[in-house]
Amino acid sequence: MARIVMKFGGTSVANLDRIRHVSRLVEAEVEAGHEVAVVVSAMSGETNRLVALVDALDQETDLGAPIEDEYDSIVSSGEQVTSGLLAIALRRRGLKARSWLGWQIPLRTDNAHSKARIAEIENSAIGPSMSDGNVAVVAGFQGIAEDGRISTLGRGGSDTSAVALAVALKADRCDIYTDVDGIYTTDPRIAKDARRLGRIAFEEMLELASLGAKVLQTRSVELAMNNNLPIRVLTSMAEVGDDNPGTLVCNEDETMEERVVSGVAYSRDEAQITLLQLKDTPGMVAKVCKAMSEAGVIVDMIVQGISRSDNAANLTFTVGIRDLDKALKALEVEKDNIGFENIKSDDNVTKVSVVGIGMRSHTGVAQTMFEALADKGINVEVIATSEIKISVLIDSEYTELAVRVLHQAFELEKTSA
Amino acid sequence: MARIVMKFGGTSVANLDRIRHVSRLVEAEVEAGHEVAVVVSAMSGETNRLVALVDALDQETDLGAPIEDEYDSIVSSGEQVTSGLLAIALRRRGLKARSWLGWQIPLRTDNAHSKARIAEIENSAIGPSMSDGNVAVVAGFQGIAEDGRISTLGRGGSDTSAVALAVALKADRCDIYTDVDGIYTTDPRIAKDARRLGRIAFEEMLELASLGAKVLQTRSVELAMNNNLPIRVLTSMAEVGDDNPGTLVCNEDETMEERVVSGVAYSRDEAQITLLQLKDTPGMVAKVCKAMSEAGVIVDMIVQGISRSDNAANLTFTVGIRDLDKALKALEVEKDNIGFENIKSDDNVTKVSVVGIGMRSHTGVAQTMFEALADKGINVEVIATSEIKISVLIDSEYTELAVRVLHQAFELEKTSA
Repeated sequence: MARIVMKFGGTSVANLDRIRHVSRLVEAEVEAGHEVAVVVSAMSGETNRLVALVDALDQETDLGAPIEDEYDSIVSSGEQVTSGLLAIALRRRGLKARSWLGWQIPLRTDNAHSKARIAEIENSAIGPSMSDGNVAVVAGFQGIAEDGRISTLGRGGSDTSAVALAVALKADRCDIYTDVDGIYTTDPRIAKDARRLGRIAFEEMLELASLGAKVLQTRSVELAMNNNLPIRVLTSMAEVGDDNPGTLVCNEDETMEERVVSGVAYSRDEAQITLLQLKDTPGMVAKVCKAMSEAGVIVDMIVQGISRSDNAANLTFTVGIRDLDKALKALEVEKDNIGFENIKSDDNVTKVSVVGIGMRSHTGVAQTMFEALADKGINVEVIATSEIKISVLIDSEYTELAVRVLHQAFELEKTSA
Repeated sequence: MARIVMKFGGTSVANLDRIRHVSRLVEAEVEAGHEVAVVVSAMSGETNRLVALVDALDQETDLGAPIEDEYDSIVSSGEQVTSGLLAIALRRRGLKARSWLGWQIPLRTDNAHSKARIAEIENSAIGPSMSDGNVAVVAGFQGIAEDGRISTLGRGGSDTSAVALAVALKADRCDIYTDVDGIYTTDPRIAKDARRLGRIAFEEMLELASLGAKVLQTRSVELAMNNNLPIRVLTSMAEVGDDNPGTLVCNEDETMEERVVSGVAYSRDEAQITLLQLKDTPGMVAKVCKAMSEAGVIVDMIVQGISRSDNAANLTFTVGIRDLDKALKALEVEKDNIGFENIKSDDNVTKVSVVGIGMRSHTGVAQTMFEALADKGINVEVIATSEIKISVLIDSEYTELAVRVLHQAFELEKTSA
């Protein structure tokens, strides 16, 4: 007997038919002798509907009072409804089940409404209830803040709820059911020969998650890694009894496939900013980073170059595409302080990355990557590297070509051991 | 400065425009220097949508496990959303406001999920918050049961929430905003000269509420009467500054209008059952009542007669029209025990009542009533009386005629002192 947490996203509980289907998947695990907690998202579309109500009110004259506490109370109702419906569907199959809201567990968070972080999950009530044979149906995405109000964990927070709950319940495994059947070597819509990975290391998944492979939320992977909790990503569309192995996200030691590069990811959510003719004074980069940080903008890739014509420095970096306007305004304000002449920006760029834990011990990955891109005439604007990742910024027009070329260069279509 | 509770039903918060309008009505009370708590229902249609989801799941094979606890968790989300939206709308007008869910107050109930009764409302958190200048926006209809789960008070429970909260907060007044501008002497759709009452006594309102004048929920009127809390019924459709006196429901002493009859009510939700050729043994009526009580059927009017032909007794009584089948089945089972030959039933009947606290000290009301009905050839099947009410059961075809005739007979169209 194992204790497992199953998590179902919005498309997996989109309507009553899907909720009934989920109840059958849960029943199969219970019949296999497991203790089961199920974490559910809101029915797909429901969160958007609720957010639209808030936004419509909030677009009136803003008098400055924050409304995130009320936003949380409103938006969390979506998961509240789904958890109740699934509990009913399970009882209708003859199972013992009850729903748990964030405040009932309680799943305690900080006071950062609409983007709260989990502080503690009590298992003194939910644990014994599961031991008594009850399926625990948990409303994802929500908790209770220190102020006694409902909090939410931010978009995609249900993955984090599920992993955190699995840790608190000392579960053996956390199964994330979604609308794809696992993690792929790259986006199958771009490379037809993309292959589902049997296993992937936490670190690799973390790079992929933060790079736009939107299957798992970054925070949930971090949390799983820190607690060495295996996550299985699999599809909720399969029937009970179907072969549905998914992808196991686990410790490096347990990843049995011998490979240097595991996947090719891309992200179109980047924008490039270049500061021209910078006075190359000590602390100049620090000043830029400080200006961005104070504006709440996260700086990703940074590269410093020397302009050949006048020997002044240029500084190029990337920010999230949504933060571009905010970043440009903040830089304009600090223009004299930082000491540059002009700004150039471009939001028509894509970050393409190869990720693989094997890079740590293998050389030649960078060479293979740049040769493959150069062969196709793809110009690289910015480069950033980590221990297990090489990212390049390219013109968005070349996105699909670059992904396919790199997928091929690292022979990702071939099944490894 | 007074402390007041304002309650808005589903049509008053039907959409964002109506919610903004409510925020202006609340603002006017705050600007008048009052401490305000607002109780809100779900946006109209929302509760029905949620109940339909539950019903669709619940119509599958019933395996016997009750689901009322989950029903409550699901359906209460409607008021949760409205309370958050109104709090936002109030902040956007520059007011201090926050929403309160049943479990946050807490408003404690018993464990009778889906039809819970209020046990206790704590004012140790909400009271000080109001004293600090915050408008308390309270999700109506919901509480927290002894089992730590969300409970609901049953359909229309938001009126009861509002009155109970007003009592707990020692409020000076409870204003129930609705889609009519007060309590009328009878249904204005039937009698064009029906008149809005300035004041009405609790006891009268109680008889009217239980008789199908669906403006206020019976439980809320009982609660207000027991705690001597005045309720004002008024329309939420008026603009700020409009003349909108509504009807004050208050103690008899405070009703200044001198009148014998205050209103004519009718209810089509009745069905008549007659047991024919009863063995007239002691305890026979008790046996009938016991059978109905065990079947969960409430018996209303009862009359016993003697059949002229064979000297056997007949017993006629009324039940709620929804309980008719259940009642007939239960009677059939107990046929030999009760000792009757045949059952007749009729669901094409209407109960018409005249209600007035002045009846206590005035004679002749019954005479006026029966003469007026007889004049129009309206046959009375069953009569029931209380201290302040006379009800008759008539053929449904005569409903409108009877209401108009009685309204005229008691001169209710005339403005009293």
